[in-house]
Amino acid sequence: MTINMHLGVIFCLVVGVVCSAAVDQKLSRKSSWTGKLLVVPMDGSHWTGVKAVAEEMGRRGHTVIVVIPEISMRLGPGKHYITKKFPVKYDQKLFNEVLTEHVHEVTNPGHSRLKTVTSTMANLLKMFNMMASTSESLFQDKELIKFLRDENFDAILTDPALPMGAVLAYNFSVPAVYMLRGMPCALDATATACPNTPSYIPRFHTGNTDRMSFGERVMNVLMSILEQVACKVMYWSFEEVTPNFLQRDVSLTEILSTGAVWLMRYDFTLEFPKPLMPNMQFIGGINCGVKNPLMKEVEEFVNGSGEHGIVVFSLGSLVSSMPKEKADIFFKAFSMIPQRVLWRYTGEIPNNVPENVKLMKWLPQNDLLGPPKARAFITHGGTHGIYEGICHGVPMVMLPLFGDQADNVHRVATRGVGVILSIHDITVETLLDALNSVINNSSYKQKMQKLSAIHNDRPIQPLDLAVFWTEFVMRHKGADHLRPAAHELNWLQYHSLDVIGFMLLIVLIVTLAMLKCCSLCWRCCCRKTQKRKED
Amino acid sequence: MTINMHLGVIFCLVVGVVCSAAVDQKLSRKSSWTGKLLVVPMDGSHWTGVKAVAEEMGRRGHTVIVVIPEISMRLGPGKHYITKKFPVKYDQKLFNEVLTEHVHEVTNPGHSRLKTVTSTMANLLKMFNMMASTSESLFQDKELIKFLRDENFDAILTDPALPMGAVLAYNFSVPAVYMLRGMPCALDATATACPNTPSYIPRFHTGNTDRMSFGERVMNVLMSILEQVACKVMYWSFEEVTPNFLQRDVSLTEILSTGAVWLMRYDFTLEFPKPLMPNMQFIGGINCGVKNPLMKEVEEFVNGSGEHGIVVFSLGSLVSSMPKEKADIFFKAFSMIPQRVLWRYTGEIPNNVPENVKLMKWLPQNDLLGPPKARAFITHGGTHGIYEGICHGVPMVMLPLFGDQADNVHRVATRGVGVILSIHDITVETLLDALNSVINNSSYKQKMQKLSAIHNDRPIQPLDLAVFWTEFVMRHKGADHLRPAAHELNWLQYHSLDVIGFMLLIVLIVTLAMLKCCSLCWRCCCRKTQKRKED
Repeated sequence: MTINMHLGVIFCLVVGVVCSAAVDQKLSRKSSWTGKLLVVPMDGSHWTGVKAVAEEMGRRGHTVIVVIPEISMRLGPGKHYITKKFPVKYDQKLFNEVLTEHVHEVTNPGHSRLKTVTSTMANLLKMFNMMASTSESLFQDKELIKFLRDENFDAILTDPALPMGAVLAYNFSVPAVYMLRGMPCALDATATACPNTPSYIPRFHTGNTDRMSFGERVMNVLMSILEQVACKVMYWSFEEVTPNFLQRDVSLTEILSTGAVWLMRYDFTLEFPKPLMPNMQFIGGINCGVKNPLMKEVEEFVNGSGEHGIVVFSLGSLVSSMPKEKADIFFKAFSMIPQRVLWRYTGEIPNNVPENVKLMKWLPQNDLLGPPKARAFITHGGTHGIYEGICHGVPMVMLPLFGDQADNVHRVATRGVGVILSIHDITVETLLDALNSVINNSSYKQKMQKLSAIHNDRPIQPLDLAVFWTEFVMRHKGADHLRPAAHELNWLQYHSLDVIGFMLLIVLIVTLAMLKCCSLCWRCCCRKTQKRKED
Repeated sequence: MTINMHLGVIFCLVVGVVCSAAVDQKLSRKSSWTGKLLVVPMDGSHWTGVKAVAEEMGRRGHTVIVVIPEISMRLGPGKHYITKKFPVKYDQKLFNEVLTEHVHEVTNPGHSRLKTVTSTMANLLKMFNMMASTSESLFQDKELIKFLRDENFDAILTDPALPMGAVLAYNFSVPAVYMLRGMPCALDATATACPNTPSYIPRFHTGNTDRMSFGERVMNVLMSILEQVACKVMYWSFEEVTPNFLQRDVSLTEILSTGAVWLMRYDFTLEFPKPLMPNMQFIGGINCGVKNPLMKEVEEFVNGSGEHGIVVFSLGSLVSSMPKEKADIFFKAFSMIPQRVLWRYTGEIPNNVPENVKLMKWLPQNDLLGPPKARAFITHGGTHGIYEGICHGVPMVMLPLFGDQADNVHRVATRGVGVILSIHDITVETLLDALNSVINNSSYKQKMQKLSAIHNDRPIQPLDLAVFWTEFVMRHKGADHLRPAAHELNWLQYHSLDVIGFMLLIVLIVTLAMLKCCSLCWRCCCRKTQKRKED
């Protein structure tokens, strides 16, 4: 889109006509055909990409209805879509409690590593149960469900990590477009019938790369077996809620496998190369295109950083504060660097905040990371943040907290464009060392610029691609021509184990028959020889 | 590209300025960065897509050098590239003889099916040997090789079915872009490390679809084992020629696996959905965009067809004639249909050529198939022809001759948009029946229009996509970030068989140890009981 816009401008300059109207026309282009899209988003950072597509679809003239729970973290109205809210069984207090508890667990320095892992898992399960409860509330809102069914949508756009939208699509027989980073326990690979060979595709939470030692491959195979069980536990509550609504027993994998197109929020500058399926499209960096001018005050702070530039620091939409003793480490380290720091921080503010630090409730992260001032980006390693770093070519210091973040930062670090620190063990020295490396060791900057150039060099922008495939599914009522026949095979058939068994049986029968023949011939010969001797 | 052009036009109309100059500017757009591209094409229809990219790359300002043998069928100079010829060891007479023999084998009605298959195979081997000889000639042309090496190309564009270009890229350490429909015996899947699961990916020459019965799956698994052997036989002569040139022993698969990007000349309106790899791009229908106005005489003949329209008949670049008795069947059948027929035919012309038949030495196939007159397309089932049929939504009567054609037409027929006939058994009745079906049975037209709509609905035109990825490889000196680590594993490791073996060994040792423990405990218990009894 950007290239086209530039070309539009170039045309006009060539003929000597100022045709800003023409370029605006391109910017506000409407689809020649319009339809109805239902959007069922997931809360938190997952909302970013989905919201961008919902807004763009609405702007192109489609009727876009976004269904959200009345209590949420970030979900809300937009300029180009209609919002429909439904009541939930929990109140704002409980919702905040679960979130605060989660944030506390991932940033609390007092716990042992094992305790942190187990309590994070317990908290994640609590969040999954809350999501299942949200889904149940929607399914039980008969009036809203009837309204949505009667709307006869052309497609449903949803994040399948919260399978509520996928279940609606299945129930309404409307094709679904999924947007996701990935699903817990590789459920996305199972549901797309995409080969997930454990010998070179590292499993999440193993810390493996695509090049593994024998021991790492053993761990990877074990993990790929274990994740089947993990999936059952994690989506247990959904598997209970869904059949009640659908009035039939159908597994979550079966529901997810009906997805027409899977918009994956990554590409191969972050992810290791692996097999894909024809109905997957890659929209990593979809959020980089959403740009806004900086507020005057922020712009002045950034411009005042001089040759040293700035450091951008955010731990994502969930975590904007941390315990005082942890925050003090950051304040102290920042006071010792020449860069100016913009930090999304809502925690306790000490008296002696260094002059080079600006604390903000919300950070225009993508706008700040744009050239030429950003020198380093301190991030928790969510995909949106990581892609903003990659888009703008800013090396990173990464503090993974939970979910896929440890795996994301691991991928960034293997490319030599970032340094990983642990929020639990961080000290002033390690933080200073890491910042010093990514800012002053030119290897990080050079590798990041190369990675950034590769990531930004593509034939179509991620947002345009996402919108194209959403419209495609709406126009053609799905994308059946991209659905592999593998979905119709069971495990034995898929791996040709029945065929191999049959072929081994044939070999066995033939061998036995031949042995029998040989033994008969042998006996026959022996008898004749014996007879001759007797004669 | 077409969409962009239209947008360019729309812009200009909006501001009320006739800016044809601007649109021309867009048409003749140059790349901001230019480099050097070496093109090593394969003869015959394989040349079509490669030539389109070579021309476009040259037009964008890149230096494009195309290396071709001095004797060929279709290879030749172009407007935007430089041609370098090299001498070969065969003369035009021998070249023609091999071709004529091949054409004779595939169209001769006198042979039994088995005889035809064996002699076609023998002839194919003869053609492969001729291609190996061509490669050897190039490799031995030291002057040309030195010139090409010194040119320091940024990339090599080649069709790997003739691995000459791939070998050059390997030798020059220049990244390669491959353009292909597929390779014999699924060598492309092996060389890209792309999963090729035989349970739902039909093997060529089996007549299977992606939905197979148990028996068909057995056949498919057998074929996937057999094709490994077939590959060895087919590329035998290359495996001998290549090490001499490279001065080291390296397998063809290893050479091919270094390909940076694979431009596949199909998409999933023709092919059954199956796994892909990140370095594959799909450019099916790349030839549909190359359009020219019809000659006046042809245009008049087409327009004079009235409401009945026309039938377009071509058996590809290799076969423009057939034995008289075979041709008579077509002449007779054509005399009995109301449509006008345009036929690429250079064989013996009978006295009573029907009035509705126009014989031509070369057919502007893609231009003739465009709406609104084409009612049916009689084709041999080469991918170019099939995609021209699909692009323009024209149902087909298909007469597969050799190579991948039987498989292509089988895929078209399973989609209900074409009828397959055998050139060996064809009669006036079967031909009339087939033509009548695809022209008058609305199901064919409707299904073809749906397939055509899906095929034509894409975010970027195939030629632009091919050019983008060729330029990408040139800009970034390859596409290493898309190369899967699977290439570094051997067969056992890839399938995790060593890991499974190790895990089984552990289970065995643990089981044995437990059994030993149990047996020791048992003995111990027995001894105590015995002792007590003795006491």
